[in-house]
Amino acid sequence: MASRRLLVDVHTHVYLPRYANVLRGRSSVPRILKRANGDERLLILDHEHSGGRPVGSQYWDRDEKLKFMDRHGIDISIVSSANPWLDFLPASTAQTLAHDLNEDLESYCSTSPSISGSTMKRLFGFGLLPLVPDVSTQSLLDAVAQISSLSHIKGIIMGTKGVGKGLDDDALEPVWEALAKSGLVVFLHPHYGVDANAWGEKENGHVLPLALGFPFETTIATTRLILSGALDRHPTLRVLLAHSGGVLPQLSSRLASCIAHDPVVTSRLKHDARYYLGELYFDAVAYGAEELGFVSDVISRAECFSTPGASTKASLGKTDRALGSKHMLFGTDHPFFPPLTATDKWMSVVENLDAIDGVTGWGEVEKDRVRGGNAIELFNLSK
Amino acid sequence: MASRRLLVDVHTHVYLPRYANVLRGRSSVPRILKRANGDERLLILDHEHSGGRPVGSQYWDRDEKLKFMDRHGIDISIVSSANPWLDFLPASTAQTLAHDLNEDLESYCSTSPSISGSTMKRLFGFGLLPLVPDVSTQSLLDAVAQISSLSHIKGIIMGTKGVGKGLDDDALEPVWEALAKSGLVVFLHPHYGVDANAWGEKENGHVLPLALGFPFETTIATTRLILSGALDRHPTLRVLLAHSGGVLPQLSSRLASCIAHDPVVTSRLKHDARYYLGELYFDAVAYGAEELGFVSDVISRAECFSTPGASTKASLGKTDRALGSKHMLFGTDHPFFPPLTATDKWMSVVENLDAIDGVTGWGEVEKDRVRGGNAIELFNLSK
Repeated sequence: MASRRLLVDVHTHVYLPRYANVLRGRSSVPRILKRANGDERLLILDHEHSGGRPVGSQYWDRDEKLKFMDRHGIDISIVSSANPWLDFLPASTAQTLAHDLNEDLESYCSTSPSISGSTMKRLFGFGLLPLVPDVSTQSLLDAVAQISSLSHIKGIIMGTKGVGKGLDDDALEPVWEALAKSGLVVFLHPHYGVDANAWGEKENGHVLPLALGFPFETTIATTRLILSGALDRHPTLRVLLAHSGGVLPQLSSRLASCIAHDPVVTSRLKHDARYYLGELYFDAVAYGAEELGFVSDVISRAECFSTPGASTKASLGKTDRALGSKHMLFGTDHPFFPPLTATDKWMSVVENLDAIDGVTGWGEVEKDRVRGGNAIELFNLSK
Repeated sequence: MASRRLLVDVHTHVYLPRYANVLRGRSSVPRILKRANGDERLLILDHEHSGGRPVGSQYWDRDEKLKFMDRHGIDISIVSSANPWLDFLPASTAQTLAHDLNEDLESYCSTSPSISGSTMKRLFGFGLLPLVPDVSTQSLLDAVAQISSLSHIKGIIMGTKGVGKGLDDDALEPVWEALAKSGLVVFLHPHYGVDANAWGEKENGHVLPLALGFPFETTIATTRLILSGALDRHPTLRVLLAHSGGVLPQLSSRLASCIAHDPVVTSRLKHDARYYLGELYFDAVAYGAEELGFVSDVISRAECFSTPGASTKASLGKTDRALGSKHMLFGTDHPFFPPLTATDKWMSVVENLDAIDGVTGWGEVEKDRVRGGNAIELFNLSK
């Protein structure tokens, strides 16, 4: 059971060199812009202040990723392309680029060093589907097939737009079916937040879209996915939610109550809304021990809510943080959230490790699971 | 200490007859529409399906409110006008109507029955300020003074628009100052949610805007209020957040981390973002025991985060659900969330009472506080 002690980062991003070059060639967001002094800046969100954020080799260079991992004791990273993926491209370009980036990522992983004392590689990946408007279903299914054939690609990362109408779009039904059959893990990640008018006129840097917009977007997408019945139709689909599920954990009882009180929706689903949280996986990127403990509670209570319209009392005395921990997985969000001043270890990483370590009700077994054991199992890394 | 055993509802709404008449006279949302069969329908949100929701005497008749209270064992209600308040009116109308509605509400409360064995009335209220664009600061301060003079009005209810630019608007500074001095409790309540494009094209009734949009809006408004420094400048301001603070509890550590990583904001505030949750009050309208327990945890850990950029470990072993319960208060959201089929007790009320009863780590003392004791103290009802 040595593998249980590995530290595995499931939320860590890369702009592969081929993708960075696409961004360099663009004149509108998303883009990489070269300033007069030669520095490059990354602009991925509309209305970014200060001309975007500094971008450099930590975004694309594999050695930088491995150095970051070494510095923080991370044994294995499951690397995913960063947002906004291929969302802004026409279908034909997206299709070709997805194919090539998946091959690039397989190579990035398959030629990486092995962890000490094992043949297991230190890098695995989430591939890309060409999820853009007007793409053919067959192209999406072909991409699922391609990714399934790449032995170091263990899932796909996906934004919330689907092929333009979100994740509750009927057009995605064959994709969910193929993904459920493939065993690939779907990593659901935000990019757009919500309409920027919500942030008002004051200058607050990136705080509001990042701290609030990102988790809101993930929560909306997941809720729409649940309401579409996709999780009822594909119970074997494995979806990993970024940033500990956004705020779905805190809203799932309200959601259940709203469903129970709404004549349009009340009879639609097989289960109470709270049930689906036990079917989902959550990264542990929440920056606080109380938050992680709570997420663990709502995962563990899920099985009490099998019946639609279940009483809120159904979980009374039945939450079990040890059980909930099985669906939670450590992540860093690297190379985002760099420290403002040079430090040996990144504060964002230390916070997420401290949070895991500080959860009341988790013993070393649960903490080791969240730090790595769950990822080894979910992604089947030891095969 | 008999008062500690009272059940007090701090989140319960009314459309006073004068206000309902304004809605009846309108040809666009918000409005009350009479159908051919004589039934009235309420439309308060854009794009409401099925022509709005049924509306009747439970929205304006005091006897209906008292009957609802009796049926659910509620001793005292602190009644507030329902959204969208005066938001849609020109300044002069809003100013007059706020004044008249505050007088109406005082009369609604002061002529209500007393609780048995006491002179304490069964109804108290939250007044209205004419918070609309182009209103003069003096009108707002006059309304605060008027409300302070009405002995059964214990606070004000407020949406998130302020005088048009949100609650982080410098124009509100004198209002916060006056409210902090007055001792009135500010009940912050959502209405707009977020941009409806987020909900997609599928028919999901009211579920998405109510279950997600409302808590998102409250969270955004509160976060912008914190980032404006208003809580630093007015530490005696007492703000009660609807729906258990939306999702601020689940996002406060992420918010703290985003602030610590953002050069624009990192040095602005006196405290770590998590600190302010201990300064705020939260209704207990969250429909689940795990949710309430978690909110209680984040309130209780607040004092560990007095220093900006505090380590996430600062609260290690220091959360105390008994302590956190002091800032949480029972509510029902009546007359919204009516049961779909006739029942003796409303499911939404039973859920919220069951949730309080089911919180792990709360004894009868804490539960009694949340059910009523905290409200008696916060609103100074026994005077």
